[in-house]
Amino acid sequence: MNKVLVLGAGQLARMMELAGTPLNLDVKALDVLSNKIVQPISPEHVYGDLTSGIGNADVITAEFEHVAHDILSKCELSGKLYPTSEAIKIGGDRRLEKTLLNSCNASNAKHHFVNSKVDFDEAIKYLSLPIIFKTALDGYDGKGQWRLKSADDAAEVWREMNSFLTASTTNVKQAIVAEQMVPFDREVSLVGVRRVNGDVAVYPLTENHHTNGILSVSVAAPVDAALQEQATTVFKALSDKLNYVGVLAIEFFQVGNQLLVNEIAPRVHNSGHWTQQGADTCQFENHLRAICDLPLGSTALVRPTAMINIIGEDTVPNDVLAIPSATIHWYNKSKRTGRKMGHINVSGEDEQQLAERLQTLSNILCKKAFPDLRQFAANYKGKQT
Amino acid sequence: MNKVLVLGAGQLARMMELAGTPLNLDVKALDVLSNKIVQPISPEHVYGDLTSGIGNADVITAEFEHVAHDILSKCELSGKLYPTSEAIKIGGDRRLEKTLLNSCNASNAKHHFVNSKVDFDEAIKYLSLPIIFKTALDGYDGKGQWRLKSADDAAEVWREMNSFLTASTTNVKQAIVAEQMVPFDREVSLVGVRRVNGDVAVYPLTENHHTNGILSVSVAAPVDAALQEQATTVFKALSDKLNYVGVLAIEFFQVGNQLLVNEIAPRVHNSGHWTQQGADTCQFENHLRAICDLPLGSTALVRPTAMINIIGEDTVPNDVLAIPSATIHWYNKSKRTGRKMGHINVSGEDEQQLAERLQTLSNILCKKAFPDLRQFAANYKGKQT
Repeated sequence: MNKVLVLGAGQLARMMELAGTPLNLDVKALDVLSNKIVQPISPEHVYGDLTSGIGNADVITAEFEHVAHDILSKCELSGKLYPTSEAIKIGGDRRLEKTLLNSCNASNAKHHFVNSKVDFDEAIKYLSLPIIFKTALDGYDGKGQWRLKSADDAAEVWREMNSFLTASTTNVKQAIVAEQMVPFDREVSLVGVRRVNGDVAVYPLTENHHTNGILSVSVAAPVDAALQEQATTVFKALSDKLNYVGVLAIEFFQVGNQLLVNEIAPRVHNSGHWTQQGADTCQFENHLRAICDLPLGSTALVRPTAMINIIGEDTVPNDVLAIPSATIHWYNKSKRTGRKMGHINVSGEDEQQLAERLQTLSNILCKKAFPDLRQFAANYKGKQT
Repeated sequence: MNKVLVLGAGQLARMMELAGTPLNLDVKALDVLSNKIVQPISPEHVYGDLTSGIGNADVITAEFEHVAHDILSKCELSGKLYPTSEAIKIGGDRRLEKTLLNSCNASNAKHHFVNSKVDFDEAIKYLSLPIIFKTALDGYDGKGQWRLKSADDAAEVWREMNSFLTASTTNVKQAIVAEQMVPFDREVSLVGVRRVNGDVAVYPLTENHHTNGILSVSVAAPVDAALQEQATTVFKALSDKLNYVGVLAIEFFQVGNQLLVNEIAPRVHNSGHWTQQGADTCQFENHLRAICDLPLGSTALVRPTAMINIIGEDTVPNDVLAIPSATIHWYNKSKRTGRKMGHINVSGEDEQQLAERLQTLSNILCKKAFPDLRQFAANYKGKQT
C-alpha cells in the first residue's frame, strides 16, 4: 500500500507528495489537462496514461471534486478509490450535498432547487429575501453565484441565471440551488479525517476570512469546546453516512452558538493548510494515512497558527522569511490574477504572539496584493486585548 | 538563485529537496556513484553529468565532506560553491580540523598526528593512556578507530594501524590522529547556520547518544544558557574564520561545565534532524536559505523533541504512527546492516510528556533493532522526576 494516485495534479497533490515522501509513499497524480500521470512536484516527469496509472496504484484519491464522472467510474471499478465516487460527486453537486445534509440532520440554510422559472418563483416565495443562488455544479471561489436582495431585481437575476442554465454544457444536468442568506457572525471550518475502520480525528475549528469570494486567511487557535463538539458531531454523522475514507472538510456559518453547514469538500482543504506548521500531523499526511489504512496521526494544535493565501502574486518580500515561524509554501504555478499561488503559515506561542507576528507580516506584504490583511491583523490583535 | 545542486544524493539531499520545494527551490543532486545529476527524491530521473549540473545550478553545496577533491575544485571554479572547498575538506580531514580548532582557540582533546612509528611512540609519551587513534580521512560512524588502554597492547595496535596506513589508497596521504580519550559526561552538538553577510543563527544544543559508534538518539530540550553561550562562541569563531556559508554542526564532549570540540561537520547533520518537527525552521531549509542568500529562519525550539535513528531496518510497527507527534522519515534506501534507513521524531509539550512518549515508542520498537532505546527512555524519564 505505498503507491498513491491522486486525481488532479495541482497544489494539493504536490503537498501530498511532500507529506508522503518521508513515509516512503510514492505519490503520482493525474494531470486532467494532459490526461497523463505525472509527478506532482516535477510534473515534467510523465508516467503514462490513466489506465496504466490505475494499474500501478495501490490506492487512488482525488484532490478536487469536479473530476469527470467517467474517470471516477474507471477508478472506482479498480476497487482502489478513496473516498468513494459518491462522496466526491457530492462535493461537486450542491443538490446532492443538500440532500446528504438533510438526511444526516445537519443544520444548514433553508434552500430550494431551481431548474425552471416556476422553481425560481417558488424559491422567492418559500425563502425570504435576501437569497443567494448558487450553481449546483462547478461553482468555486465565489464564482457562479447571484444575490437577490430586492424583489425588483428578480426578473434581471432570473434572466442571467436562465441564460447561464441554457448555456451550460456540463455532462450532468446543471441547476441552481437557492439559499436563504444567513446573517452569520463568522465562517469556520472543520477539517477531519476518517480511516477505513471508522476511526475519526478532527482538527480544531478554523476561522476563515474571504476576500472577493476567495479564502484569504484561516486561523487555528484554541476553540470553545461546545462549538468544537457540535462540529465534530456533524463530521461524524456525515463521514459515517458516506463510509468516508480520507480528509473531509466542512465549512460552517456560525450564527450565535449555532453552526450551519455551508458546504463540504471531500478532500484536503485550503482552510487546513495551517496544519503543516500548527498541528501534530498535517492534513496531507493524515489523508494519505487514512487512504493507505495507516493509524491516523494526532490532530492536536501545537500552537496558534494562521494561514495567509498568496493570490495572483509570484513573489513576496524576502523579509517575510525573517519573521520567526513564518513559512512560505509556493505551488510553482504561473502567475494569474486571482490564482492561488502559495500560502504563508505563521505561528505564535500564544495568540498574543501570533497577533504580533501577523501585524509584522501584514506590514511587510504589499497592501494591493493582500488588501484585507492589515485590517484583519489589527482586528485579530484587538480581539486578544 | 533557485537552482541548487547538492554534491551527494543521499538522505540529506533528499531532505533538502523536501524542505526546498515549498520555497520553489529546484534541488538536484550529484549521485557520486553514477556521477550523474539526479532528483534526490526520485533518483531515477537523470539530468546529465556534473559539468552540465554545474552549469545549470545557481548555487552548489555538499551533503558530505568526503567529496573527491577534483569535483570540489571544479565546483569552486564556477564560483557557486557554498561553503568553500576548504571548509568541506576540513570536515573530511582530522588534521585540518585540529589545526582549525587550535587556530580558533576552540578547546579540544589533546592530540598528536601519527604518520610513523616514531610519531606513534611520541603520541604515547605525549598523551596519557587511554588514547583513541582515528584515521585522518574517511572515518565515520565509529569506523577507522583504535583504542589503546594499556601499554601492553601498543605493539598490536601499531601493527593494525600500520597495515591500515600502508594499504590506504586515498588520493590525499592518509594519517592517524591520536587523541587523549576524554572522560566526558555526555556528548552534545550545536547545529548552526551562517549566511553570506555573516548573520548567524544556532539551534539549541542537542544531547546525543551512540550505539555501536553510530548516533542512535538526539534530544533537543531547553538548555543551560551558559553552556549554549559557550557553544555559540565556538560556532561563531569557527564559522567566521572559515567565512562559512550554510549549516555547520559541531560535536562536543561535555566535561563538567566545559565543552571540548570533538569534531565538526560542514553540512546539515544527523543530530539536527529533530529540527524538522521541533524548531521554527528546520536545518535543511536554513541551509538552503543561507546558500541562496535568503534571510535565516528562526532556530527557536518549538517543543522538546527527540530524534531516533532507524538503523538497518526498513519497517517499524505501524503503531509508531499512533503516538501523538511521532513522525517517521524514511530515506528510501535498500536495507543493509548498520545503514541509516530513516529516523523518527517525537515531541512533547514539555520534557515530561516527551519522556512518556519516548517510553511508549521504546516499547513498540523491536528491542533488537533499537538495543539501547528502552534504557535511554527509562533514564530520560528518570532525569525529569
